[in-house]
Amino acid sequence: MTTTATTLKGQPLDKAALESLLRRRMFYTPSFEIYGGVSGLYDYGPPGCALQANIVDIWRKHFILEEDMLEVDCTVLTPHEVLKTSGHVDKFADWMCKDPKNGEIFRADHFVEGALEARLKGDKEARGQKVEEKEEDPKKKKKKHKDLAAVKLDDAVVQEYEQVLAQIDNYNGEQLGELITKYDLKNPATGVLPDTPMPFNLMFQTSIGPSSNLPGYLRPETAQGQFLNFAKLLEFNTGQMPFASASIGKSYRNEISPRAGLLRVREFLMAEIEHFVDPEGHKKHHRFHEVENIELAFLDRNIQLSGKTTITRQTIGQAVKDGLVDNETLGYFLARIQLFLKKIGVDQSKIRFRQHMANEMAHYACDCWDAELLTSGGWVECVGCADRSAYDLSVHAKKTGAPLIVRQKLDEPKTIEEWELDINKKKFGPFYKKDGKAVEAALLATTQEDRSRLAKELEETGKTTIDVPDVGEGKVEVSKDLLAVEWRKRVEHTREYTPNVIEPSFGIGRILYSLMEHNYWTRASDGGDEARGVLSFPPAVAPTKVLIVPLSSHKDFPPAVRKLSQKLRSAGLSSRVDDSSASIGKRYSRNDELGTPFGVTVDFQTVQDGTITLRERDSTRQVRADEDKIIEAIKALVEETKTWKDIESELPLFEGQQEAEVPVR
Amino acid sequence: MTTTATTLKGQPLDKAALESLLRRRMFYTPSFEIYGGVSGLYDYGPPGCALQANIVDIWRKHFILEEDMLEVDCTVLTPHEVLKTSGHVDKFADWMCKDPKNGEIFRADHFVEGALEARLKGDKEARGQKVEEKEEDPKKKKKKHKDLAAVKLDDAVVQEYEQVLAQIDNYNGEQLGELITKYDLKNPATGVLPDTPMPFNLMFQTSIGPSSNLPGYLRPETAQGQFLNFAKLLEFNTGQMPFASASIGKSYRNEISPRAGLLRVREFLMAEIEHFVDPEGHKKHHRFHEVENIELAFLDRNIQLSGKTTITRQTIGQAVKDGLVDNETLGYFLARIQLFLKKIGVDQSKIRFRQHMANEMAHYACDCWDAELLTSGGWVECVGCADRSAYDLSVHAKKTGAPLIVRQKLDEPKTIEEWELDINKKKFGPFYKKDGKAVEAALLATTQEDRSRLAKELEETGKTTIDVPDVGEGKVEVSKDLLAVEWRKRVEHTREYTPNVIEPSFGIGRILYSLMEHNYWTRASDGGDEARGVLSFPPAVAPTKVLIVPLSSHKDFPPAVRKLSQKLRSAGLSSRVDDSSASIGKRYSRNDELGTPFGVTVDFQTVQDGTITLRERDSTRQVRADEDKIIEAIKALVEETKTWKDIESELPLFEGQQEAEVPVR
Repeated sequence: MTTTATTLKGQPLDKAALESLLRRRMFYTPSFEIYGGVSGLYDYGPPGCALQANIVDIWRKHFILEEDMLEVDCTVLTPHEVLKTSGHVDKFADWMCKDPKNGEIFRADHFVEGALEARLKGDKEARGQKVEEKEEDPKKKKKKHKDLAAVKLDDAVVQEYEQVLAQIDNYNGEQLGELITKYDLKNPATGVLPDTPMPFNLMFQTSIGPSSNLPGYLRPETAQGQFLNFAKLLEFNTGQMPFASASIGKSYRNEISPRAGLLRVREFLMAEIEHFVDPEGHKKHHRFHEVENIELAFLDRNIQLSGKTTITRQTIGQAVKDGLVDNETLGYFLARIQLFLKKIGVDQSKIRFRQHMANEMAHYACDCWDAELLTSGGWVECVGCADRSAYDLSVHAKKTGAPLIVRQKLDEPKTIEEWELDINKKKFGPFYKKDGKAVEAALLATTQEDRSRLAKELEETGKTTIDVPDVGEGKVEVSKDLLAVEWRKRVEHTREYTPNVIEPSFGIGRILYSLMEHNYWTRASDGGDEARGVLSFPPAVAPTKVLIVPLSSHKDFPPAVRKLSQKLRSAGLSSRVDDSSASIGKRYSRNDELGTPFGVTVDFQTVQDGTITLRERDSTRQVRADEDKIIEAIKALVEETKTWKDIESELPLFEGQQEAEVPVR
Repeated sequence: MTTTATTLKGQPLDKAALESLLRRRMFYTPSFEIYGGVSGLYDYGPPGCALQANIVDIWRKHFILEEDMLEVDCTVLTPHEVLKTSGHVDKFADWMCKDPKNGEIFRADHFVEGALEARLKGDKEARGQKVEEKEEDPKKKKKKHKDLAAVKLDDAVVQEYEQVLAQIDNYNGEQLGELITKYDLKNPATGVLPDTPMPFNLMFQTSIGPSSNLPGYLRPETAQGQFLNFAKLLEFNTGQMPFASASIGKSYRNEISPRAGLLRVREFLMAEIEHFVDPEGHKKHHRFHEVENIELAFLDRNIQLSGKTTITRQTIGQAVKDGLVDNETLGYFLARIQLFLKKIGVDQSKIRFRQHMANEMAHYACDCWDAELLTSGGWVECVGCADRSAYDLSVHAKKTGAPLIVRQKLDEPKTIEEWELDINKKKFGPFYKKDGKAVEAALLATTQEDRSRLAKELEETGKTTIDVPDVGEGKVEVSKDLLAVEWRKRVEHTREYTPNVIEPSFGIGRILYSLMEHNYWTRASDGGDEARGVLSFPPAVAPTKVLIVPLSSHKDFPPAVRKLSQKLRSAGLSSRVDDSSASIGKRYSRNDELGTPFGVTVDFQTVQDGTITLRERDSTRQVRADEDKIIEAIKALVEETKTWKDIESELPLFEGQQEAEVPVR
């Protein structure tokens, strides 16, 4: 699983240097750092915040506006009952295990993974092979090294470990416990085996209202709010299917032991789409033809179960045709996800779509593909695309009685013959008293097969029994004066169905972090200085578009800077002024680190003739022209209607007066 | 306090009709409604969500971009220690009282307010005056009516009640309890007096991590994250002062008994600015001259304490000059707040700035003005603008030892003579062992006066004592081989200071709700149908800019609609298609309710010659021209470079083929 991450230019990635840059430039910072910090919580500083806003803005245009999705903003606070029904209270858990000696708590799968990887590394060392250091939190590394003895393993053992690792996400708690025992995986810090893995629910709990009688959670996903509003959204959409809702907001997961920086956090921004579709007719999508020729990298379920990670490249059209991807709607979104990632500047060679294995899937999913991005932390799940079938709408409808269904007018009326129930409401309620509702619900939930039995028993004996959980002994007798069951024919003019849901779900923070890694490089790759880092974000996502640099603190410059800054603002281009006393070269280097694609210098000539220089971040080349022409050029570059090459061919190059560009650390 | 709300056109506001419209069009909806809902939690549907996004976007441009503020995005989850230090754990509470008979819980000030208002209403009725019904939650109304007997009060009593109500926000729990006893204010539902008011902390509590040993809260404001990052933000700003940080995000308050719809919710979007300023030099603001002639409506502290609510109108320049508003920076932001509210379409005659009374102010504030908007719920605090002085930075610096200060280079070095401490580090630690840090901290915290005493005692007796809380008996002896105190002269080249903070803090949800009330009217005011509601949002904030209406379901229209929709998208104009089978009039009426400012019709002529009609929401008048001209016109209207009058003078009016416009309820 260990991979060697590279920079945008293919250099080996020096993760420590990148992280130092990101913190120095305040892309992000540990929350509450002056209080010692809290693991899994990070704040975004100004450039991180702007980068996030730009990614979200492009997401909104690419998905919501392009496809007329219905955006909603639902609360994070969610009462217990909703998440009990959705299954999260019972099933939204990771397996944790505790060291009985020092009380340390691990996520069981990460513990097994770490221990086996350490042994494989020791084996490689013993065989005299080069060991690739996987970048990790320094604390964790220290701990692991204790266990890292250069012990050679049998070839068969190596293969076995590799197979376990390839399907590490597929084990449940019991199986993880067995692996710990079988391979004798001790905690290197104490030398003892951890206890049996136990489930740990990942939701943050709280209490709503002053009397503490309404337990609630912070939502673990934005999806539930969208499902609960389904009936209103369908009405808003004037009853038309299919349609999608979407939501951008924070979600929360109380991770057991988060140590992977922005890749595993406890509070995170999600962007989720719930696309509601008729389950009949193979979930076709009317715009599938627009994407069918797009090629994706697939890692399917069977390959993983065979212990391999081989990738297949093919068009999404072919993948759906072959049944690798179940249906057009799912396939359409996989392709759209790929296009979105491309648009924001994710390295296309570092994307793969991995199918979930059976045990790995969330409790609600019937098929799921993750868009994974290759980073220094390996392949990281950044977008999930699950087919949740009718699971959520069904369970909420059942629990609340709300009709979370679609009523479709049939072109031709349909004749139906089946068993129907007549409950004698007058007698039924008074007879069963407080149990009445439960008994009625149990009757209504009966299948046609059940009803055929009820009808027979009522006819033969004048009474029947039915299972009603939590009432009496779990069985209730019903007599024929309370219930009739009859075989009837009726004509239906409408069809009722519960839509299925295809859910593309984006972890914005993970995408943002991967994007920073993918766009990072140093000038060393161009023969320059290793210490000069650059973040080559595409102009559309770059936190700030333009850096304005006055040549010096001369009193003539501030008015020109203010005017320029105002003009850029009117043109919708974000800019920042750097009028610090650092040299121009230093100021440009600082802004390369901030990923600012364009820089303009205001100098004495500007004051005389209104011309300014425009510097392009990646090439460091400059052109010079009058202010308005330069602004027009920047606008075209940001909107991607022109390339830098176009600009160089249109405006005169500028080569004089350039100071040496130097690192700024 | 009861006020009669009006619509945009001055009609009396039918709040029930407006709320029905807002829910029907899914501007907002109670969260978890199919589960019975949770009071104080609401979801925004598509139009509410878009309206919110547009308000936030304008806010970001008006404040952050216009003034180069540093935007940050900090976590909602906050560990106990941070909010303990900030004072929220101890002081962020409302007074609640419980009915001992039925257990009902009230917010004490709301209880007193409700009871006195009911008596005043009864008095008016007894005097045969018209009673204005204040719109309330139906449940609450029912309860109050029991108490509403038409009993005439003495004139002196009426005056006393009115004085209490004018300063209701100024009472603490004890005083509220005294009012309850003094006026014998019983709970109408049970006929008994509620118990003594108790403080109820408004923060939602949770626990971070698997071992439940890190208690935390959901932040009650976004401010703390900004303060904790102060040192990094100052560095990001290359050390330059003043500067502002800003944050847009959710905050949480566990309101005791929220019943006022969107005006009092438990989860809400805030936009907060922390403007850091040097406390020396009267907090001048370099752009104050740009706003000094703007006139505001003030309700100052003294007027309220005298039991009145009289408003003074004057320019902010005059108000600062007269000392009504303490300083330019505070004044600058009050004026900028007014401009922002104007820009998004808040009714200018329904804004006032109310100064907080001493007891009412948050524990951190030294002066505070609220921008209040007049709604059916009375004057509602929508923006707070507080001078938090150096409170927060000081307490966090003291607690953590982090230097949350500014180091300013002095133009002229300054000579300082004072008592200085020399601690003998070598001996000090080993001597006090575990108490060493606490004793050292106590020494360093001594004042110049303390030190003069220490010096004297050390000289005279060779030892001294100092107060150290939690060590020994609270007093510790220090001998002269551990400590020297000397009078020294030194020259300083830098000045260190803790900045003061001016904090404009916006409740986006309250602004959004007020905006909907202020922009609502019905066609009855133009002689039309009372049932035809309109939301006249300015185009810039309107949820959707353009409605596209194909004349019928004829097969020629969809391609034209798609093309038009694509063109609008490229022009950055959001649109929605209504191709339902309703009549054109009905579809336009539906979109008046959604506040969509412009509608275009695609008809048979469109297919022939590419022309479309453009309808303006407020006047319902139409023009017709070719597609590109119409799109250009819409763009100019949305960007406010042209008015509808300009468009009517440029493009030919269209009067044919118009269907009767009809209500849609």
